[in-house]
Amino acid sequence: MHLAALHTLSQIQLNQYGNLRHFLSIEGLSQQHLINILETAETFLGENGQIINRPLLEGRTVMNLFFEPSTRTRTTFEVAAKRLSANVLNIDMQQSSTKKGETLRDTLWNLEAMAADMFVIRHWASGAAHFMAQSVCPDVAIINGGDGRHSHPTQGMLDMLTIRRHAGKPFSELTVAIIGDIKHSRVARSDIEALQTLGAKEIRVIAPKTLLPTGIEEFGVTVFEDMDKGVEGCDVLIALRIQNERIGSPLLASSEEFYKLYGLSEARVQRAAPNALVMHPGPMNRGVEIASNVADGPQSLILKQVNYGIAVRMAVLALSMQGQLEAKGLLDQALV
Amino acid sequence: MHLAALHTLSQIQLNQYGNLRHFLSIEGLSQQHLINILETAETFLGENGQIINRPLLEGRTVMNLFFEPSTRTRTTFEVAAKRLSANVLNIDMQQSSTKKGETLRDTLWNLEAMAADMFVIRHWASGAAHFMAQSVCPDVAIINGGDGRHSHPTQGMLDMLTIRRHAGKPFSELTVAIIGDIKHSRVARSDIEALQTLGAKEIRVIAPKTLLPTGIEEFGVTVFEDMDKGVEGCDVLIALRIQNERIGSPLLASSEEFYKLYGLSEARVQRAAPNALVMHPGPMNRGVEIASNVADGPQSLILKQVNYGIAVRMAVLALSMQGQLEAKGLLDQALV
Amino acid sequence: MHLAALHTLSQIQLNQYGNLRHFLSIEGLSQQHLINILETAETFLGENGQIINRPLLEGRTVMNLFFEPSTRTRTTFEVAAKRLSANVLNIDMQQSSTKKGETLRDTLWNLEAMAADMFVIRHWASGAAHFMAQSVCPDVAIINGGDGRHSHPTQGMLDMLTIRRHAGKPFSELTVAIIGDIKHSRVARSDIEALQTLGAKEIRVIAPKTLLPTGIEEFGVTVFEDMDKGVEGCDVLIALRIQNERIGSPLLASSEEFYKLYGLSEARVQRAAPNALVMHPGPMNRGVEIASNVADGPQSLILKQVNYGIAVRMAVLALSMQGQLEAKGLLDQALV
Repeated sequence: MHLAALHTLSQIQLNQYGNLRHFLSIEGLSQQHLINILETAETFLGENGQIINRPLLEGRTVMNLFFEPSTRTRTTFEVAAKRLSANVLNIDMQQSSTKKGETLRDTLWNLEAMAADMFVIRHWASGAAHFMAQSVCPDVAIINGGDGRHSHPTQGMLDMLTIRRHAGKPFSELTVAIIGDIKHSRVARSDIEALQTLGAKEIRVIAPKTLLPTGIEEFGVTVFEDMDKGVEGCDVLIALRIQNERIGSPLLASSEEFYKLYGLSEARVQRAAPNALVMHPGPMNRGVEIASNVADGPQSLILKQVNYGIAVRMAVLALSMQGQLEAKGLLDQALV
Repeated sequence: MHLAALHTLSQIQLNQYGNLRHFLSIEGLSQQHLINILETAETFLGENGQIINRPLLEGRTVMNLFFEPSTRTRTTFEVAAKRLSANVLNIDMQQSSTKKGETLRDTLWNLEAMAADMFVIRHWASGAAHFMAQSVCPDVAIINGGDGRHSHPTQGMLDMLTIRRHAGKPFSELTVAIIGDIKHSRVARSDIEALQTLGAKEIRVIAPKTLLPTGIEEFGVTVFEDMDKGVEGCDVLIALRIQNERIGSPLLASSEEFYKLYGLSEARVQRAAPNALVMHPGPMNRGVEIASNVADGPQSLILKQVNYGIAVRMAVLALSMQGQLEAKGLLDQALV
Repeated sequence: MHLAALHTLSQIQLNQYGNLRHFLSIEGLSQQHLINILETAETFLGENGQIINRPLLEGRTVMNLFFEPSTRTRTTFEVAAKRLSANVLNIDMQQSSTKKGETLRDTLWNLEAMAADMFVIRHWASGAAHFMAQSVCPDVAIINGGDGRHSHPTQGMLDMLTIRRHAGKPFSELTVAIIGDIKHSRVARSDIEALQTLGAKEIRVIAPKTLLPTGIEEFGVTVFEDMDKGVEGCDVLIALRIQNERIGSPLLASSEEFYKLYGLSEARVQRAAPNALVMHPGPMNRGVEIASNVADGPQSLILKQVNYGIAVRMAVLALSMQGQLEAKGLLDQALV
């Protein structure tokens, strides 16, 4: 699936009134859509950051379809759906009927006929969620839980919620650095798209050439190969995960070498703006992309990101359900 | 387990008042029992076929025991139980204590002691659900989710619900063809039993001799080896799944050959009665037992079958729970 | 982790008011704590032993973390939590992010940040639950679902509930024999600790030297190598499971040999006190550690143990949640 096609496809996220109906990618959503998601997420967070239960999906059925394993994303979506009082079914698609010779399209049509209201889909193929929303399961709401290298939009939104709650100034005044394996990261892509839509002052990507996608300049970011220069004055530092399987490959000599060049150490945090936010999508390789004392230090928001991830996923589930009901003329009053 | 024994065993499906108490097989149930199931299922279907939630099993615990994998049946039972507000536990019996040297009987007694109200059992051995209901777990309600080649009674009932809602005339005026691998199909068997009990005008089976069980004539069906003749004038066409592992075996030269002789093509649908219903229990092998344009065509009810499967399973769960409470003198008023 | 350290660690089970806050081991709890658990469990048992649902954990999230497989313990905790109206998530930690290079500590911190209220942990390493409660997840309640050879405290408590309900006299008048593989049994250890705390008259362990832990005498038990002598006059007989992998090892010549020397046969039951209680934690090896007719005989409470296990786990979950809320100043009135 080409990017050009995706741009058009992203329109299928909205219903006839222009409201969110599927949640597939940051791309194709307006600043107002993103702010609406963030503000809805805030309503699920109590004074001390605790999650507030609200039965907005009472009697609704959410199916978690995981075509690749993911404890973290699966669990947070399950928690989010249950805290909205939805019924949740986890379906391991690696063990499903597709093994019996059924086409994926038939498997999905069948699942849709099982009276599901929403699917959360995690897939190794880029564009899988768009494909489902557009051509396979148009009658249910589709939430993208991460597809290939393409996007991981709920991760992007929880990063935005973290920044919004802790940066102390608006996006328009923020310089944000995204560090490490940009090339293979669906998180990086979703973060960049969200930061641009929310009007961040400057977005920097810090990485060796080998870990940058071709055409990165077209994304409207500033590229730094030298990390010490890249972090200077940044308000937000987002370290990305290096996948173990890349270490020792031609891309990456060793984890020690990577840490030396691109690891988020205390010294580098000090080159950034005072009280710069430290973030990481997890799971972390301590001592590779981030120093342990930085990960556990006072500027780290890494565990808050996880917590906000519940609220953001609740928001996305509730808003998409609302958009689905509205599209079908079944909405008496706004859910959220 | 012999058929003669099964006939007697099927009586254990009923409680002392003659009402459903376990749901093990179509055999042993009267026309009135089947109609009661179908009419109860109808109460869970809204005007547009949407499933209506009813908290009839609030506070009850349903355990899904799967001794062989089945995404589809497990998921539909889980959806059905949750839409009745039951607690549902999925227990993968392939990984259970039986591996620790415990006998199956002990494992099941233990599960029963865990305060379950109902078990849905899917087992590779014919008669497994009867065995459980009769001798291992007599105090809980047992629902057969498919046992060996023996029966798959909820599939049989959802097929009957599909026919009843769409055929436009009573069973007594319907000619129904079941096509393909009759020999290895628990669906075929349950369909034949249900159609006979409901008084279908004629039941045809269309298959090569190698895919017919011995003694098929005793089931009261008409056998056709020539499909073009078999489908003539039929009101309902049920194509069965061919298991991949049979293709290329002595029974079945190739999938192309099978399609040529027994595939449900558009031309063959046209030989049947006008607007004949097209059905398939899934998962489908497109281009083998059914043509793609027939599966997706206007006469196809294949996805409706899946949807009705939720309603039928809700009915069977609710009626069996009612029969269990009644048997124990714990029923104040009918649940359904 | 050394026993000396464990003794200190066990204090972390209590909150600042001395009430249960985690449930990690019998050790470190007073007689009053144990009686409180037993009496709370009684409130979940109806007149006929049926489990009574109570929504004490409505809106709370319980995560079942299983680092080793256990159908029985996982299922009973899941049933218990659901009967208290909690949301339950099962997380197979054998397939989790720890495989992606994340440290266990990070994985757990992440799970804690996912807005869980309680973790039930089953782990192959002794002391794992203490480690979690003390240093990794101090803000949630931790329930030990069995850790290494160390302890299995909910099994210990359900054994005590079984004895208390059926022995017909107080613990101070009871002689209890624990038979078989004491050395590798976390159940034996929890039973011994609980019986001592509850003031049992005499605790006997019956086993060959090879299946006794070193220093067993320090536990305050009487050791018998001769089973016929050991069972004499006992009020309670607890047969332990022999793990298959030990049979045929230098420790254990054959299962026939073991049965001859240490099997709980009818003749041996008759040497005990009249109506002595027969118990086994399951899964059983019939004909090895216990005779089939004893397991199924009138004195056997083996299936009642399973049932009481639900009530005990409900009690432990509810009391720990209460202690957690109390510790945080969030408790308006006692839950239980």
